[in-house]
Amino acid sequence: MWRVGEQVWIGVDVGGTKVLAGVVDDEGRVRRTALRRTPGRRVDVRMVEDALTEAVEEAAGDAEVLGVGVAAAGFVDADGERVMFAPHLPWEDSPLREVLADRWGVPVVLENDATAATHAEATYGAARGARDVVVVTLGTGIGGGLLLDGCLHRGRNGMAGEFGHMQVVPGGLACECGGYGCWEQYSSGSALVRFVRERLGIRPTVLEDMCQGNPALLTGPMVTDAAGDGDLLAHEAFQHVGDWLGVGVANLVAAFDPDCVVIGGGVSAAGDRLLDPARTALERTLVGAARREIPPVLPATLGPGAGLVGAADLARQTRR
Amino acid sequence: MWRVGEQVWIGVDVGGTKVLAGVVDDEGRVRRTALRRTPGRRVDVRMVEDALTEAVEEAAGDAEVLGVGVAAAGFVDADGERVMFAPHLPWEDSPLREVLADRWGVPVVLENDATAATHAEATYGAARGARDVVVVTLGTGIGGGLLLDGCLHRGRNGMAGEFGHMQVVPGGLACECGGYGCWEQYSSGSALVRFVRERLGIRPTVLEDMCQGNPALLTGPMVTDAAGDGDLLAHEAFQHVGDWLGVGVANLVAAFDPDCVVIGGGVSAAGDRLLDPARTALERTLVGAARREIPPVLPATLGPGAGLVGAADLARQTRR
Amino acid sequence: MWRVGEQVWIGVDVGGTKVLAGVVDDEGRVRRTALRRTPGRRVDVRMVEDALTEAVEEAAGDAEVLGVGVAAAGFVDADGERVMFAPHLPWEDSPLREVLADRWGVPVVLENDATAATHAEATYGAARGARDVVVVTLGTGIGGGLLLDGCLHRGRNGMAGEFGHMQVVPGGLACECGGYGCWEQYSSGSALVRFVRERLGIRPTVLEDMCQGNPALLTGPMVTDAAGDGDLLAHEAFQHVGDWLGVGVANLVAAFDPDCVVIGGGVSAAGDRLLDPARTALERTLVGAARREIPPVLPATLGPGAGLVGAADLARQTRR
Amino acid sequence: MWRVGEQVWIGVDVGGTKVLAGVVDDEGRVRRTALRRTPGRRVDVRMVEDALTEAVEEAAGDAEVLGVGVAAAGFVDADGERVMFAPHLPWEDSPLREVLADRWGVPVVLENDATAATHAEATYGAARGARDVVVVTLGTGIGGGLLLDGCLHRGRNGMAGEFGHMQVVPGGLACECGGYGCWEQYSSGSALVRFVRERLGIRPTVLEDMCQGNPALLTGPMVTDAAGDGDLLAHEAFQHVGDWLGVGVANLVAAFDPDCVVIGGGVSAAGDRLLDPARTALERTLVGAARREIPPVLPATLGPGAGLVGAADLARQTRR
Repeated sequence: MWRVGEQVWIGVDVGGTKVLAGVVDDEGRVRRTALRRTPGRRVDVRMVEDALTEAVEEAAGDAEVLGVGVAAAGFVDADGERVMFAPHLPWEDSPLREVLADRWGVPVVLENDATAATHAEATYGAARGARDVVVVTLGTGIGGGLLLDGCLHRGRNGMAGEFGHMQVVPGGLACECGGYGCWEQYSSGSALVRFVRERLGIRPTVLEDMCQGNPALLTGPMVTDAAGDGDLLAHEAFQHVGDWLGVGVANLVAAFDPDCVVIGGGVSAAGDRLLDPARTALERTLVGAARREIPPVLPATLGPGAGLVGAADLARQTRR
Repeated sequence: MWRVGEQVWIGVDVGGTKVLAGVVDDEGRVRRTALRRTPGRRVDVRMVEDALTEAVEEAAGDAEVLGVGVAAAGFVDADGERVMFAPHLPWEDSPLREVLADRWGVPVVLENDATAATHAEATYGAARGARDVVVVTLGTGIGGGLLLDGCLHRGRNGMAGEFGHMQVVPGGLACECGGYGCWEQYSSGSALVRFVRERLGIRPTVLEDMCQGNPALLTGPMVTDAAGDGDLLAHEAFQHVGDWLGVGVANLVAAFDPDCVVIGGGVSAAGDRLLDPARTALERTLVGAARREIPPVLPATLGPGAGLVGAADLARQTRR
Repeated sequence: MWRVGEQVWIGVDVGGTKVLAGVVDDEGRVRRTALRRTPGRRVDVRMVEDALTEAVEEAAGDAEVLGVGVAAAGFVDADGERVMFAPHLPWEDSPLREVLADRWGVPVVLENDATAATHAEATYGAARGARDVVVVTLGTGIGGGLLLDGCLHRGRNGMAGEFGHMQVVPGGLACECGGYGCWEQYSSGSALVRFVRERLGIRPTVLEDMCQGNPALLTGPMVTDAAGDGDLLAHEAFQHVGDWLGVGVANLVAAFDPDCVVIGGGVSAAGDRLLDPARTALERTLVGAARREIPPVLPATLGPGAGLVGAADLARQTRR
Repeated sequence: MWRVGEQVWIGVDVGGTKVLAGVVDDEGRVRRTALRRTPGRRVDVRMVEDALTEAVEEAAGDAEVLGVGVAAAGFVDADGERVMFAPHLPWEDSPLREVLADRWGVPVVLENDATAATHAEATYGAARGARDVVVVTLGTGIGGGLLLDGCLHRGRNGMAGEFGHMQVVPGGLACECGGYGCWEQYSSGSALVRFVRERLGIRPTVLEDMCQGNPALLTGPMVTDAAGDGDLLAHEAFQHVGDWLGVGVANLVAAFDPDCVVIGGGVSAAGDRLLDPARTALERTLVGAARREIPPVLPATLGPGAGLVGAADLARQTRR
């Protein structure tokens, strides 16, 4: 498929709305990227694979591709062969790794996106050098990854790290997963927006203008911006979501006792505005806080490219 | 210290009220045991070490001791050298492994008791052959252990597995740990007894007689016995505690995706009376239940000796 | 409008799906009734008033109508003149009392349906002779009425008695009212059905067949029937909903300290199957239970006609 | 007992730690007061009655006493004759009204202190002119009183208004009443202090110095002072307690639909710092907030003398 010259490893992140491919060097830096839209869940599998191929080819350019790591927003089986199910993509029990390896003629590694991002943060990012790492990503919902004793932990069904669906409120908010009171209902971009929506018209806030008086137009980034501009309601929203973040992190630390906790995802762009209340809640809530080293709660450093960086690196490691 | 003849590995479990030592053969069977009372938390460390030594010597008899595994009810550092803290024993940041190895002149391995029990259940017991195992022990509170990718997971401070202090009810019951709404407040022997106490005098029950009308005399084993005799209130108590058990187990499965979950501890003597409602709650609560294999929830099979069996086996493995 | 001969008082209950009119004698008995469908919320107000008129005329027959009491499923202002808002009917800030009195040429009394039912139960039904009565009706949601010191309590906006929207679970289930964790999400016909739905396919139950394997077809009366046939899951559903009923009733008793609590609505057809767990929960939860007379929790006795009986009686009283 | 000259009505408030008597004029003003310590719960009833008598005599001075109203911190039966039980006073099922009337030779009226305060606030204070009033007093716990349709509502056992023991968190904090998750555990002086204690050493605050580093020395008034000085943690404590206040008030408004809600007790000294978050929470939480007049949440205006003012006024009214 690709010709001689430069030799590259490529990582590609397949999300619900877009495919992002990138050349990743051996220090975890992304050299050039290519973007395609994801055609959605109700299309032929082939169309997504075409989008993937286009993105990878554009990123590769003239270079020789030594291997590709694919980070997919879905459940990948423990062997890294199949996508079992993906909420926003058409695959179901689909042998994607082999399909792509055959189509592209190069070694392919398939990994869950949060797990790939965890590998990247532990190798090149916020958790470099740590053996036991919990990664929590706050987007629309909560995703998660685990590095334990230096190895990525995927679990029996490849479904480990579903932290967002741990129940934190009995009889709580209904979740799309069918459960009630899931953590991601209280600490996520959606929770941030809901907190503000419930208070529009009651509390004065610049967000009223930002969404033109229409609560439906409100977005997480608006709340982040408003908080940065000193808006009190936006500030409280981050206090609230950050407090819930810390409560859930305390649960994970009680279970895993990791070296550090890394917080990624779009909501984490708010930085300490989100992380400080989380740290306070962790310290307040964690069992035996006085008798242990409380693990640092760190912002992810690789940003939205963490998944593709991790996938490319896993492909490179597998080759060796 | 010990002379020739039979060659044995010994395990010893040091709890808050007693020391139990036993010779453990290479199929995980306990051949003979010796029991001593634990002198308590407010005594000289030396007294506990004397009790340990007496129990080990009595269990050993004339045999040559090849090594001893010590399972301690406290926080053991990640290197297995020190007891950092134990709620019911006098050690604090104490280099117990070296002290005992010097005193006894044989190799000693030191491990947290729940971790040792997890190793035993995974090697000889309910979870034999599994790679990813969550062990939950229900006694007065909740203890826990983790086998992940075939290795015991101890965590940075040796404090992994503190499942009982994961918060399941925000603003919930105050816990001795200083937290609120900890899981063990809702699913444990204490929770079982509290459920009944709150209903004495309101619902008819044989437990009224069993505790001679004095709620303070009520114990967990009484509730187990009453349930076995068909008492409706006792039955409901197990339904309630079992339901909460399943909710917490669902959280752990969401995070770890293990091969199986093993339930031990005194309350687990109730068997399916406890485990069936837990399984129902797990199936109802677990994220993606329809798209995954739900791990079996199994009763521990090694009983109260699991800790010493696991410790002895860890000592044997270390030697090899 | 109506001619001489027999002289009657008529009550009419206007609900979301039907209008039920009836002649009510001076002992609170319903002598003959007439039924019409309610045309729904998105029709002209006139159409509902036509349906009302037809039902009243049919019920009246040849008799002379002395007055009509109208019990409406909506917010009626404190003066009994206007329907401010009704979730399932087209009125909004509508001077319904005057409109109907003009149209029919007889005295008309307008009352909220739950308040009318409360008057009926206190005058002819379960709470006869009591001065302080709390009425809780369990249908799709929860409705409520209050008789305090012998008088119906309507509140400043005619909105007293909205017990169903008292929050019992912080961060709980989203409610149609916009709130979270409202009582009616946990104790109502909807809650009963949800409890069963979540367990279909996990627990064996005759309800699986009754709804032909389709959880969407499940109804409250099916659960009532199944419980009557000894189905264990249906039994548990009533235990659960009844327990939550008792918790909420305990809150109301703490606030009002009434002579008795009357439980009506469709779900109350289950009788003691619902009320016994509610009584147990009340006794367990109520403040100072040991130092007070705990008010009896009684089934409503007037059934679905309570609203029209109460409205007719209020019309009769007003005349006097 | 008292001789000619000036003619006065006296009110006396009997609390757990002190007796406060005062002459109350016919505009609800306290003219002169007298204070005695309450001897406590474990003394002879006679000693408390002596303290009461001394306080009343000192307040009366040379004036002729026309009658005395006694406001007691305990359960008073619905007839106003007996103190059934008082947590901090020695009476149990004691015919206090008659005992005092006989001893003093003047008409005596006996009332629960919160009910007396409610009467005072509705007659001379924050709720003057209202027909339906809910009074909530935040001290160590929560007390409450109800004026409905212009009449004080006492309930069957004289126990209405126990708002503090309405359950707001299922499985929540254990309460001294034996219940769990009672409102006063989350919104009261105790809750205010607990919020701060849990965060001492984690968040910087002047309260650290104010309590000399000893959390046990922390008091509610310290938190009020610190908040007034701009301390951020103290501010958050009032936000938290005020939010919970509003949630509970929303429950009461849903049930009663009153003209106004009056907040009294020591914690209410913080004024809008407490009441603003409560109003926000009320507006956010109350059912049908967009379709009703939301009742104002007002600070009590009569202060700690409200109970004796109300009792004196009830005595004066009874005479007429």
